[in-house]
Amino acid sequence: MAYLAGIVGYRGYSGAELVRILDRHSQVAPVLLEHRDDAGGQSRIRGLRSPRVAPCTTETVGSEGLAVVFLATPADVSMELAPAMLSAGAKVVDLSGAFRLRTPERYAAWYKEAHTAPALLAEAAYGLPEYCRERIRPARLVANPGCYPTAANLAIRPLVEAGVVDRGAGIVCDAKSGVSGAGRKPTLKTSFCEVTENFSAYSILQHRHVPEVLLTSGLAEGEFSFTAQLLPLDRGILETIYFRAPGLASAEDIFAIYEKRYSGEPFVRLYQPGSVPDLRAVARTNFCDIGVTYDPATGRGVVVSAIDNLVKGAAGQAVQNMNLMLGLRETEGLL
Amino acid sequence: MAYLAGIVGYRGYSGAELVRILDRHSQVAPVLLEHRDDAGGQSRIRGLRSPRVAPCTTETVGSEGLAVVFLATPADVSMELAPAMLSAGAKVVDLSGAFRLRTPERYAAWYKEAHTAPALLAEAAYGLPEYCRERIRPARLVANPGCYPTAANLAIRPLVEAGVVDRGAGIVCDAKSGVSGAGRKPTLKTSFCEVTENFSAYSILQHRHVPEVLLTSGLAEGEFSFTAQLLPLDRGILETIYFRAPGLASAEDIFAIYEKRYSGEPFVRLYQPGSVPDLRAVARTNFCDIGVTYDPATGRGVVVSAIDNLVKGAAGQAVQNMNLMLGLRETEGLL
Amino acid sequence: MAYLAGIVGYRGYSGAELVRILDRHSQVAPVLLEHRDDAGGQSRIRGLRSPRVAPCTTETVGSEGLAVVFLATPADVSMELAPAMLSAGAKVVDLSGAFRLRTPERYAAWYKEAHTAPALLAEAAYGLPEYCRERIRPARLVANPGCYPTAANLAIRPLVEAGVVDRGAGIVCDAKSGVSGAGRKPTLKTSFCEVTENFSAYSILQHRHVPEVLLTSGLAEGEFSFTAQLLPLDRGILETIYFRAPGLASAEDIFAIYEKRYSGEPFVRLYQPGSVPDLRAVARTNFCDIGVTYDPATGRGVVVSAIDNLVKGAAGQAVQNMNLMLGLRETEGLL
Amino acid sequence: MAYLAGIVGYRGYSGAELVRILDRHSQVAPVLLEHRDDAGGQSRIRGLRSPRVAPCTTETVGSEGLAVVFLATPADVSMELAPAMLSAGAKVVDLSGAFRLRTPERYAAWYKEAHTAPALLAEAAYGLPEYCRERIRPARLVANPGCYPTAANLAIRPLVEAGVVDRGAGIVCDAKSGVSGAGRKPTLKTSFCEVTENFSAYSILQHRHVPEVLLTSGLAEGEFSFTAQLLPLDRGILETIYFRAPGLASAEDIFAIYEKRYSGEPFVRLYQPGSVPDLRAVARTNFCDIGVTYDPATGRGVVVSAIDNLVKGAAGQAVQNMNLMLGLRETEGLL
Repeated sequence: MAYLAGIVGYRGYSGAELVRILDRHSQVAPVLLEHRDDAGGQSRIRGLRSPRVAPCTTETVGSEGLAVVFLATPADVSMELAPAMLSAGAKVVDLSGAFRLRTPERYAAWYKEAHTAPALLAEAAYGLPEYCRERIRPARLVANPGCYPTAANLAIRPLVEAGVVDRGAGIVCDAKSGVSGAGRKPTLKTSFCEVTENFSAYSILQHRHVPEVLLTSGLAEGEFSFTAQLLPLDRGILETIYFRAPGLASAEDIFAIYEKRYSGEPFVRLYQPGSVPDLRAVARTNFCDIGVTYDPATGRGVVVSAIDNLVKGAAGQAVQNMNLMLGLRETEGLL
Repeated sequence: MAYLAGIVGYRGYSGAELVRILDRHSQVAPVLLEHRDDAGGQSRIRGLRSPRVAPCTTETVGSEGLAVVFLATPADVSMELAPAMLSAGAKVVDLSGAFRLRTPERYAAWYKEAHTAPALLAEAAYGLPEYCRERIRPARLVANPGCYPTAANLAIRPLVEAGVVDRGAGIVCDAKSGVSGAGRKPTLKTSFCEVTENFSAYSILQHRHVPEVLLTSGLAEGEFSFTAQLLPLDRGILETIYFRAPGLASAEDIFAIYEKRYSGEPFVRLYQPGSVPDLRAVARTNFCDIGVTYDPATGRGVVVSAIDNLVKGAAGQAVQNMNLMLGLRETEGLL
Repeated sequence: MAYLAGIVGYRGYSGAELVRILDRHSQVAPVLLEHRDDAGGQSRIRGLRSPRVAPCTTETVGSEGLAVVFLATPADVSMELAPAMLSAGAKVVDLSGAFRLRTPERYAAWYKEAHTAPALLAEAAYGLPEYCRERIRPARLVANPGCYPTAANLAIRPLVEAGVVDRGAGIVCDAKSGVSGAGRKPTLKTSFCEVTENFSAYSILQHRHVPEVLLTSGLAEGEFSFTAQLLPLDRGILETIYFRAPGLASAEDIFAIYEKRYSGEPFVRLYQPGSVPDLRAVARTNFCDIGVTYDPATGRGVVVSAIDNLVKGAAGQAVQNMNLMLGLRETEGLL
Repeated sequence: MAYLAGIVGYRGYSGAELVRILDRHSQVAPVLLEHRDDAGGQSRIRGLRSPRVAPCTTETVGSEGLAVVFLATPADVSMELAPAMLSAGAKVVDLSGAFRLRTPERYAAWYKEAHTAPALLAEAAYGLPEYCRERIRPARLVANPGCYPTAANLAIRPLVEAGVVDRGAGIVCDAKSGVSGAGRKPTLKTSFCEVTENFSAYSILQHRHVPEVLLTSGLAEGEFSFTAQLLPLDRGILETIYFRAPGLASAEDIFAIYEKRYSGEPFVRLYQPGSVPDLRAVARTNFCDIGVTYDPATGRGVVVSAIDNLVKGAAGQAVQNMNLMLGLRETEGLL
């Protein structure tokens, strides 16, 4: 193997997915980093080419020769570990929300706690390769996007860039996620008997992923409504996005916008106008699938955007970013 | 028992639910009517006080003394049976879409077939008791509302009536339904392996329930976007409804509108502002639960409306209508 | 209401089911007893005729006039509360395992803790009405059976009593339960993402419900193999029970044994030979459904026994016992 | 690619899994063969390196240069296609039950139809590599084992070979399968609303997979009880197998038997005594995981055997057989 990558939080769902992906990567092998907060909960990983385990310390970066460290940890742990791992010489891909917003004030407003590593906010590259590829390549620290914003931004930004939507009417994003998006820590809300045969909305209009969407999509605050909802299934995010785009002739006009924007993008798949993706189409893949419907009589349209929240919404995109940071083929380990 | 009610289509999901409800009704007992198209598929009904079975003929109305006949049948069968059963002297509650729209033209446009009993369209009362109670009481024929429109109209019409919404911006209704809403006939789309761990959108912007919502909510065609989606669960509909209502002080202002409108309504339950229902709250009940969230900074709001698609969305509301038609207590058998 | 019944542990799944059943009972109304260990976790109860709430103290028995107290609590809490509530004058139905075995030694061996109310073990009646009805009627304290033993004993004891099984070959009980059987406290094992699309065995050959089966079925220890397994669903227990019964002519011979034994039993339903129950048949009912298959060529047979673990396996059977203890109709509130 | 492999029935679940596996195989590429009976039902395959499609004819074998043809078809179609494809020069791996039993009489008795290609029964190799590897390598025709028998035989045969079980007491195999095992054709039994929140037994004591288990395990007819059951999940088979083995000291003794037998086997994983596999451990892998529990006090033991029914139970094992037949590395494309 050309490189080794440390993984903090490997017992969680995103962390286990990182291990699974790197286990098949041709040039990077995983090293599991044991962190003090990570106790309890047996690892989900089985039957792999027994990955190495090492303590989660700055010394490990040197002794194991880690080129990258993935932080699949809560934001407060990431704010502590990111500066330490960078100082020890590793590049860092952080899967938490710690470095996604641009100012400590904005972080404090949405995450309800003070930012403890504000000096890194300016340096961190936002890890959405389809829009930030050139910032990601040379970065030491990448803020891996949130799962909801990944699906939302890839669907919304082309419409905003093309200037076809009536921004005054607003864009509505109705988002649904599988339960793994809530993490692996047992809670009543994610208990089987509470979730099965149920469906529920949460964080209506005030989810902490909203500022990430605004930042990248180009929309202003009053132009966007967002609701997160819990599906009774393991993995997947599907977002149904509503817009007004007066004066277009047909869905083909919108399809053409996406086709132009995502030509050559390896992980965005477009559906023919009138057909839309479902969650099964993207499960266990790094694809974001997008389909659009439009009614010329009313000028109203709908985009459906689907990803696997643990892959393109977390671990897969993190590996995509790592590939860019290490100068490897962007799709390595992901197709 | 004071009355007997025939049920056509009792092997289907709505039909079986009708039997289950009437089995506990203090004044009406079910009679299962065997229809020629109803073969195959064992009945789902077990362990009940063995209901009577009779052939689905007009003679049965007289010989069994049926006061009412429920048609839990496809629209084309309903268009054939409704006039026959009415002529035989029974009142009819039709659970199909056959008599919900007001003109044969509109029916043909949305249901893609000619209406074969157009003379009854003017007579049929739309069976949403919260808005049409006085029309329902004396009716011979009630068109039981669609499942999606029931949840939508109860949530949207108070906002339209109160004149607080920006109709130009449009109202978005993102609807999700359990699989039983698709009926019991086996199809690939409703096969277990296709549905589990999946979520998919269908009939985007062109679902045949749209004209029912427009008719009752008071919205015009260009003011409404609707998407139907399939949840990997048995029963329940949850609709997330987005609107703009500029200039209100808080969610309390909207809550007050609903509170005033639904005061005294036995089957509408309102949630305190900021909290919203989930599907578990309404499963196996005839309630429509409604909760509202509002952001005064942007003037954007969200209403969540939840029902059990087989109860308030079908069989329960049908019994509620029957109670009104027979002069019984409206809630009999439903609490 | 003629009687009031206190419920300790009403936030749990069995407790909530008790409230739901008593809410429809014609002669007994529930009073929710707040217990110190019961914090966290919102009640699952909604839309009921607002039941009374009172502190879980011995004074409440007198001040509220409680005829019965249901303990839907862990065994250690039950061992503390049962003597106290009895002293305060209430009858007690305990849903834990605290009083199901006959000696403190046996309790300690299987529950891995000392019994703290051993004086009550001799007094407690085992609450399986089909076999202990006359002991239950006059009892002050009833030990409500475990969920697995209820389904097992109702299926196995008739075969043992009739002397048709080859006890040397042994009886195998392969048991599967929905997740609600594990209680409502969040754990990794009962988290949605760990359970969905999964199936797992636990406590193989050493489940603490084994001695309950031996005690009532009449089998000796070496004659019985039992495995508990977790189904990815909310509620229901199905047990597939294998036996050798050489020399019988057909399944009819075994059916006749069950038919004779359960004639007149309101909550045992028998299936015609060759057909067996599934979980849907018993969901939300107090029935135990039993079906038998037999191959005369090999002398091997299979009984399938199904219950709803929260109803006949817990709350429903507890109300059945309460009805007997209060001299009410045994089926009241349960059909 | 060194070889091309035709797949008949690629729209079904096993067929789609074959395509998915071969899509990642380094030396064999799939060609989809369109068969007349295969209409309806969109392919489940997406986002692959667009596999070739060709008509399912004998000419295609030559014109496309197919080294192997996989028949993921019903038994009657396999009996027609197998001789034709062999004559055309392709090797054949048949996933149906057509060639698993050794005589036309036995086939007719269990499959309730006459065998139409009896001449091939003697030639067909039974495709369980762990026991028939040397027969498979030179075979032209391999009968890929049934899903239930694969899990059963790998667990039972070592015990029978070692002579430790009390065969008179009999071995009980309680088998549970995900719904994909029933195929993709829509039926009421596999409809979502019938399966979810349900669990049911079928073909009790008379499943057509029983003779396959007897043939390979070494058990006689009266020594084996088998029940198939339907789990509310997509994929996976778990079998709980009960036996008597008097006189052993501990589970270690049994573990040692398995360890010796499966040493070096790439697709059998053993669990330490006392721990057992669940379905998640084997999902989307070609492993059969086996764990054993034993109680020396009673001489009773339990083996748990788990596979993915579409992989080791169908398509994965078929590719394992193909690798052997083509002289490739046995694990190619499967790890």
